Amino acid sequence: MNPDSGLTASLGAFAARPQDFPAAALQVAAAGVCDAIGTMFAGRKDAAFATLRKVLLPEGLAASSGEASVLLGPVRTRALDAAFLNGVATHALAMDDVAAGCHPSALLVPALLAEAETLGRSGRDLLQAYVVGYEVLAELASREPDALHGAGWHPSCMLGPPAVAAAVARLRGLDAQQCTAAIAAAASMTGGLVANFGTQTKAIQVARASSAGLLAARLAAEGLTASSDALERDPGLLKAISPQRRARLDGVFDPGELRIVTQGLSIKKYPVCYSTHRVVDAAADVARQPGFSAEGVQGVQVDIGSMQAWMARHHEVRTPFEAKYSVEFAAASGLVARDASFAQLSDDFIHAPLVQRLIAATTLRLHEEKSADDPVFSPWDRVVVTMKDGRVFDSGEVAYALGHARRPLDAQARRRKFLQCAEAGGFENGEVLLNKLENLQDLPDVRQLST
Amino acid sequence: MNPDSGLTASLGAFAARPQDFPAAALQVAAAGVCDAIGTMFAGRKDAAFATLRKVLLPEGLAASSGEASVLLGPVRTRALDAAFLNGVATHALAMDDVAAGCHPSALLVPALLAEAETLGRSGRDLLQAYVVGYEVLAELASREPDALHGAGWHPSCMLGPPAVAAAVARLRGLDAQQCTAAIAAAASMTGGLVANFGTQTKAIQVARASSAGLLAARLAAEGLTASSDALERDPGLLKAISPQRRARLDGVFDPGELRIVTQGLSIKKYPVCYSTHRVVDAAADVARQPGFSAEGVQGVQVDIGSMQAWMARHHEVRTPFEAKYSVEFAAASGLVARDASFAQLSDDFIHAPLVQRLIAATTLRLHEEKSADDPVFSPWDRVVVTMKDGRVFDSGEVAYALGHARRPLDAQARRRKFLQCAEAGGFENGEVLLNKLENLQDLPDVRQLST
Repeated sequence: MNPDSGLTASLGAFAARPQDFPAAALQVAAAGVCDAIGTMFAGRKDAAFATLRKVLLPEGLAASSGEASVLLGPVRTRALDAAFLNGVATHALAMDDVAAGCHPSALLVPALLAEAETLGRSGRDLLQAYVVGYEVLAELASREPDALHGAGWHPSCMLGPPAVAAAVARLRGLDAQQCTAAIAAAASMTGGLVANFGTQTKAIQVARASSAGLLAARLAAEGLTASSDALERDPGLLKAISPQRRARLDGVFDPGELRIVTQGLSIKKYPVCYSTHRVVDAAADVARQPGFSAEGVQGVQVDIGSMQAWMARHHEVRTPFEAKYSVEFAAASGLVARDASFAQLSDDFIHAPLVQRLIAATTLRLHEEKSADDPVFSPWDRVVVTMKDGRVFDSGEVAYALGHARRPLDAQARRRKFLQCAEAGGFENGEVLLNKLENLQDLPDVRQLST
Repeated sequence: MNPDSGLTASLGAFAARPQDFPAAALQVAAAGVCDAIGTMFAGRKDAAFATLRKVLLPEGLAASSGEASVLLGPVRTRALDAAFLNGVATHALAMDDVAAGCHPSALLVPALLAEAETLGRSGRDLLQAYVVGYEVLAELASREPDALHGAGWHPSCMLGPPAVAAAVARLRGLDAQQCTAAIAAAASMTGGLVANFGTQTKAIQVARASSAGLLAARLAAEGLTASSDALERDPGLLKAISPQRRARLDGVFDPGELRIVTQGLSIKKYPVCYSTHRVVDAAADVARQPGFSAEGVQGVQVDIGSMQAWMARHHEVRTPFEAKYSVEFAAASGLVARDASFAQLSDDFIHAPLVQRLIAATTLRLHEEKSADDPVFSPWDRVVVTMKDGRVFDSGEVAYALGHARRPLDAQARRRKFLQCAEAGGFENGEVLLNKLENLQDLPDVRQLST
């Protein structure tokens, strides 16, 4: 097969086409950008960010000049490093958005923001480029029938660099050959392991994928050569990472129907493991039913998928980290607070006798059946509570978490999340920045976002 | 299994142990350092280096201050970038040394040189750290029974980052926990595809592996956490990249017998794909036989391993680049020039009618049997030439290329290569630098290497 007529080249041609995407696509992109920047502020106190900052931007080298801003603040550095630093903050709490089994905005936004700041591009340019990156990511994900996790790979890190490279190449207005080279070179810049989940390296690997895509696009702009079939060659990237070598290698990308519109983004409402979000929602549903009181609970039964329970595996909860990865805490938090946010991820809340009693009173019933939407999830979760007086409260089956692309948060809820995140990170101008982000499409220069 | 009692942790403990390695090990390391610096000078005019330099060190930003030198010259920059830039130059011509199916010196030297310059360490410290890196690389390679290439991976890029991280961690004197974290974090920073062979991206991906190892070690020194079983977890790095998932995951590293002594380094004599070196040697052997003349050749038959032929796949040769990756050119160059060096990688030589005729007259006979030393290679290659007058010249079976660890180049031949490389790169102080490198063990401060 002619290497210039396959998947990589078709994605390069798509990235190079100077088309305007429809408003519905740009709206999803704007929601993703806003959510990512919120989670970035929430994550800026995380240890992974502090560690990387010491290495990339040691004390004394922080400057007010440089291509791009760190955390949209006064410190600036070169774009490659800004993307890396901002990316770590964005993914550090793992509450950034989800689609295609990856974290699209944690990948795309740090690199696009840094490059748009460097070039002084408009908000609209950034959103158009985001759509390109999302489509490339979704196309690559669609070609793999098995969960990449099963082979040990962190999907965002393995599919992200080519998607980011395509997005940045679009933002820079590279031609089709350069866009293809950017995507193909980025295919050599993947890397990230499930084995490093639960450590600071998880956020490092996602952020490095963002910076890698930017690097690949900049190298391609300077003439870097790469194989124009690096994704689909047998074996190229897609086959190399494929758990059972079943990735689809043939056929080109069909840009007809935008996946960003049909599949959307799932925005995480709570800063806890996504596996437990439906449980929080179900428990909050129970707690809102007339006559319910958390004090009167005798026992809690949670129906949940076995893979979800494996990821959120802390049955005893003593620390905020364990709370983030605990099905039992998710149920208790929903029953007591009708929420599972920063206020609940505090020692005071976690160690409250009522919360600890509910955690201990919770039993799990695991399900093996997989959702058609995502093989990590069961078709639904459910919380059933038995009261001391014998009454029973039942959430019913919850198929989609609040914030899932099929059950989206409204603008008000997304605003609330952004402001909570800004507050959690100690960022004081949340309202002002949010107003700018909500009108990103009309912002003439992305540099106006930084303070 | 306790994650702290497995392969990753045992390699971390090895890197942290402040032992002095024997002279035989340091001698091999010194030969590798010298060869890598030679090939770095030869590669500094390569397009991949120029491209990366434009991105990492744009005009106007080149400085005489900075942690580490670029190409051992007056321009200095931060160590992460110096390692990346110097690494691209070192591997650009693919004539750097080979062991464990990887390019040890192209991986280790750029990172170690940059960190030793930053810290003002001695030549002896650098060589000790090199030994650590080599041993880690050789251990990881020994656990994979199949050629990583077969799954699409460029081995140096997949095994290199943990090895470099271990070496830099040793140079910095990190403790066992930090060394383990460095190795484990680097396991999340692999990436590199066979699909990008034949493009500038090949050198970029090797150099990025060197810089990644340095990054991981520096992050670990600042407290980065990573999973202490990231290499051997099922699935961790070793299983994820394993072509048939047959990598050995159990057992710890036994540092008793140093592989750098028992396996050594193969120094490449020619600036062409290593897959074709035995063919150059075999053809040169034929050309040296009494009564042979290249003009009288009717047909050339090359016996070669199928994996080697797949890597050196250009059957028609119009450019120096295609010549580097062509079995047919290797045979023709050996028959005509008894060599395949810079002089032969010229348009004049490539387009000479005799050379083109011999390329066209060459047929390959592919072998599937694998060498016990290296699954990329067949047990031997062979060149058999039939003359127009019916005579037959036969090289016999050539099992090891000149310069292979089992058929090493003498000191004089290595000096000659270094000086050829310096000249090819337009570097004028080759003799002076070579004298320093030949006494690297006694150099009190590595910064004295730079001009």
